[in-house]
Amino acid sequence: MTKTDLSRFNNDWYQPGGALKKLLWYFCNVLVLKNHLWFHGASKIALLRLFGAKIGKGVVLKPGVSVKYPWLLSIGNHTWIGENVWIDNLTRVEIGSHVCISQGALLLCGNHDYKKSTFDLMLGEITLEDGAWIGAKSVVSGGVRVKSHAVLSVNSVASKDLEAYSIYRGNPAEKVKDRTIRV
Amino acid sequence: MTKTDLSRFNNDWYQPGGALKKLLWYFCNVLVLKNHLWFHGASKIALLRLFGAKIGKGVVLKPGVSVKYPWLLSIGNHTWIGENVWIDNLTRVEIGSHVCISQGALLLCGNHDYKKSTFDLMLGEITLEDGAWIGAKSVVSGGVRVKSHAVLSVNSVASKDLEAYSIYRGNPAEKVKDRTIRV
Amino acid sequence: MTKTDLSRFNNDWYQPGGALKKLLWYFCNVLVLKNHLWFHGASKIALLRLFGAKIGKGVVLKPGVSVKYPWLLSIGNHTWIGENVWIDNLTRVEIGSHVCISQGALLLCGNHDYKKSTFDLMLGEITLEDGAWIGAKSVVSGGVRVKSHAVLSVNSVASKDLEAYSIYRGNPAEKVKDRTIRV
Repeated sequence: MTKTDLSRFNNDWYQPGGALKKLLWYFCNVLVLKNHLWFHGASKIALLRLFGAKIGKGVVLKPGVSVKYPWLLSIGNHTWIGENVWIDNLTRVEIGSHVCISQGALLLCGNHDYKKSTFDLMLGEITLEDGAWIGAKSVVSGGVRVKSHAVLSVNSVASKDLEAYSIYRGNPAEKVKDRTIRV
Repeated sequence: MTKTDLSRFNNDWYQPGGALKKLLWYFCNVLVLKNHLWFHGASKIALLRLFGAKIGKGVVLKPGVSVKYPWLLSIGNHTWIGENVWIDNLTRVEIGSHVCISQGALLLCGNHDYKKSTFDLMLGEITLEDGAWIGAKSVVSGGVRVKSHAVLSVNSVASKDLEAYSIYRGNPAEKVKDRTIRV
Repeated sequence: MTKTDLSRFNNDWYQPGGALKKLLWYFCNVLVLKNHLWFHGASKIALLRLFGAKIGKGVVLKPGVSVKYPWLLSIGNHTWIGENVWIDNLTRVEIGSHVCISQGALLLCGNHDYKKSTFDLMLGEITLEDGAWIGAKSVVSGGVRVKSHAVLSVNSVASKDLEAYSIYRGNPAEKVKDRTIRV
């Protein structure tokens, strides 16, 4: 059987940003964004914008949030990013308006080609459309579009698109029912 | 289809404690309770009691534990709270005696009414009866009673009551077998 | 029904290392290994070796990694340990070459005998053979051997051995397909 050889892994093609910008952001992420003592969300949002994130109005950002590359992140209006949410956006993540990402959730853009001995890096953009709700400790995999007002339940894993106004649960997440919203 | 509007979210009715007490506890939680360098569990328990937690004797509290509001927490005797356990008790959490909560588990009292456009906050008390075991990285949802000596397996999600002397697994957790205890 | 009595828990037989060595490592783990500001992996690997870990060449160690006892850890060549990976090696963990442990995964050697009122500690060694991939936020339980080039998917739980060149998913993880590697 063919074996993997991680010494031959090569992601030189992957250039998500300048070295200095990445280094500076790395420390800002650790010292400010993830810092629980720095609980003032508005200043964290300002810092994310300074590094290129597009963030609308009325966004709530809780302590402990980690963002890989702000310049690959956009967030609409009145969206909530919960405590300890991990946005591991090796590539673009687009979050709509009125989205809730609950505590401990992970947006996971990176993957590896397990069919290649070189274990190549694979990237997939993530899109969370308006009104979506990503439950606590759940995971959205790269390439997934969570459509309008879809819900991913607690500790579930979305590895394919979630249909609009639908509620999903499990690993892999399966649709369990429709979401009907009253006024 | 009706859309959610998080700008209309209103939890003014939710008053879990005075602003000063909440602020003081927030920093105590980050600087003392969650602090891995502060590994002396007894002093953390004393601090929790100072903020109103009812905690029995012989309780073991590991580093990295996070508690939202100590005054809404009660713990019996000889109970273990493992490393990095997250007690997100927006409302009352009652933990019995001889309970084990393993590392990385989450007690999640908060929820949202996904059927309302205003995404109203919903709270559910959590009760862990004597002898229960909450496995590593598992989640107990609000409103759930884990009955006497029930077991929730690693990385599982309890979203309804767990019957006594029964072992549950999965997301949502289903009963897989009885728990029989020899002397 | 018989009840558990955690006051009678006794793990005096468990002597994983000298008290001073354990204390020193505890602080090294918190201050250096887990420290996100200390992002220089090579010095962390040197520190692990100083405390008895056997680690090959070309190993990549990301920030936020936690290791319980380095002297019970061995890692081959060109293996990657991802961000926030938690190696809770109460007993021996053997990791082969060209293994990838993705971010947030947990190797969980400890367990308890839930059939005994004294809730005895039970330990199980973990072996990850060459070319294995442990997905993000997944858990490997004690006593499990992940055989050559097996894959455990995101947020899954391996509670029994994983067969070689096979892909597993879920809680408990079940085989979903073969892994075929092209050159």
